[in-house]
Amino acid sequence: MGILVVGSVAFDSIETPHGKVENCLGGAATHFSLAASYFTPVRVIAVVGKDFTAEHEAVLMRRGIDTRGIERADGLSFHWKGSYAGAMDSAKTLGTDLNVFEKFEPKIPAEYKDTEYLFLANIDPVLQARVRSEMPNVRRVCGDTMNYWISDHRENLAKVLRELDVLLINDGEARMLTNEHNIVQAARKVLAMGPKTLVVKHGEYGATAFFGEQSFNGHAKMLHPFRAPALPLAEVIDPTGAGDSFAGGFYGYLASQPELTPEVFRRAMFYGGVMGSFAVERFGTERLQNVTLEEIEERFKLFCQISHLDYAKA
Amino acid sequence: MGILVVGSVAFDSIETPHGKVENCLGGAATHFSLAASYFTPVRVIAVVGKDFTAEHEAVLMRRGIDTRGIERADGLSFHWKGSYAGAMDSAKTLGTDLNVFEKFEPKIPAEYKDTEYLFLANIDPVLQARVRSEMPNVRRVCGDTMNYWISDHRENLAKVLRELDVLLINDGEARMLTNEHNIVQAARKVLAMGPKTLVVKHGEYGATAFFGEQSFNGHAKMLHPFRAPALPLAEVIDPTGAGDSFAGGFYGYLASQPELTPEVFRRAMFYGGVMGSFAVERFGTERLQNVTLEEIEERFKLFCQISHLDYAKA
Repeated sequence: MGILVVGSVAFDSIETPHGKVENCLGGAATHFSLAASYFTPVRVIAVVGKDFTAEHEAVLMRRGIDTRGIERADGLSFHWKGSYAGAMDSAKTLGTDLNVFEKFEPKIPAEYKDTEYLFLANIDPVLQARVRSEMPNVRRVCGDTMNYWISDHRENLAKVLRELDVLLINDGEARMLTNEHNIVQAARKVLAMGPKTLVVKHGEYGATAFFGEQSFNGHAKMLHPFRAPALPLAEVIDPTGAGDSFAGGFYGYLASQPELTPEVFRRAMFYGGVMGSFAVERFGTERLQNVTLEEIEERFKLFCQISHLDYAKA
Repeated sequence: MGILVVGSVAFDSIETPHGKVENCLGGAATHFSLAASYFTPVRVIAVVGKDFTAEHEAVLMRRGIDTRGIERADGLSFHWKGSYAGAMDSAKTLGTDLNVFEKFEPKIPAEYKDTEYLFLANIDPVLQARVRSEMPNVRRVCGDTMNYWISDHRENLAKVLRELDVLLINDGEARMLTNEHNIVQAARKVLAMGPKTLVVKHGEYGATAFFGEQSFNGHAKMLHPFRAPALPLAEVIDPTGAGDSFAGGFYGYLASQPELTPEVFRRAMFYGGVMGSFAVERFGTERLQNVTLEEIEERFKLFCQISHLDYAKA
């Protein structure tokens, strides 16, 4: 049990039609960890600067997240500035200050070595590959990436893809990675690159999982895809971290289960949507810090109600 | 039982990455009728020109569609030319020759007057309203519209919206109609304009139904939306008419059921997706002419498999 996540712990300055925040705690590993922490123990590897205080660390520790792998470096933490407008389906990046993240050399504490589930958040694929190789005994590896690594670091990324049980990317990234417009054709090409399973996130439209033949060892082949809905929300306050929160709910649930079956995978997709739907209700990580298990279960049921026939009977 | 549809019967010249066709039978009423004909009797009101031959009519008649309301006028039929590229999620219109459609004055044959379900396909809202008023005893009215009527004929459209049990439009149309980016907020505004229920089509991502308080008379309020998936298809040959085919499957199933319950509505959304998924497998109406009831039921099950938890148990 338990997940080790390597990725960014950062500060975000965000403007949306609902307001703005400066220097709020963010980063892929942060959103992922908080979302996953409701399902399974989480350990983080990241680097932060002197601006990351005990108060920030407490946000993670209150959720039981193991922060021993968060290294303090001289300088400032990674800082992202962005804004959303209109349908808020994509961020406009106003600034990216890598700061201490630029020289990030992930170090895995000895106490982390027995973690069974590895999540490689969106960082340089060279670092993703290194962490993977230093964790030879993990049961599962799940990873994320982004357009920058796809376009400019393709060979390094290819090495990571070969190691993945699950790759989690969005529609645009899947198309960019494969030069295919059709998402099913794109999925076939991605699966041929190595990942046993591909989860394509569609933002407000949910997500689709595509399964390779090796997705479920010892289980019947599951050849057709699986589509999980997203919750239609009347108010999206801040979409930042929604995809990482999806990943946290998805992988957190997977890691909490004794066995990876098709049904467990399907439920994980729903829990991913659930955690993504909470994340966007407030700026930054505010909502993910304070959701309850009852709220998660209630929303999981709501996801079933909005997508299942015969729900009353099921 | 039975549906009366008023709309375009036309010829399409279409180019997609998979090839091109010239002057193939098309039009909203054609796609709608063929899709709905697998569920319930369908009657059509439209106008065509001399180029609409007995062979074209036979396409509809072979599916048992009542063509007595198709008026022959001097001149040529409505002709649409368009092309699709890339992800094929929107058509580029290369030409629209309204021809005989420009002076379309729908006339309802006396034999059609007992039809219980009316579908107002995408035509001038003045004509939609007229047909509605001439069918005072229908049980349900469902309608479609498009950006042109929304932007330039808003007052006329408003009169139609007040009469609708179900409005079927896509994301862009819902946003345009309400000036709301958020689709839930847009849905609330649309429902306030009159339709008891709104179905928003999301193309390859499926569709969402939003229910007003009057959606289901005599049934419990169903306040949250319902999301139906679309089938991830490896090959979309021609997206033309997918939305009309969705409408045909959706409304055809509704009209085939003795009562409109929330469960019937949900299933109708799935049948809409099923017929839309068939429509795009071939150019024009080719696939819709030749699908079988067994294929429809098989695909309906597939839609459940790709979207339901515990499918094996359900």
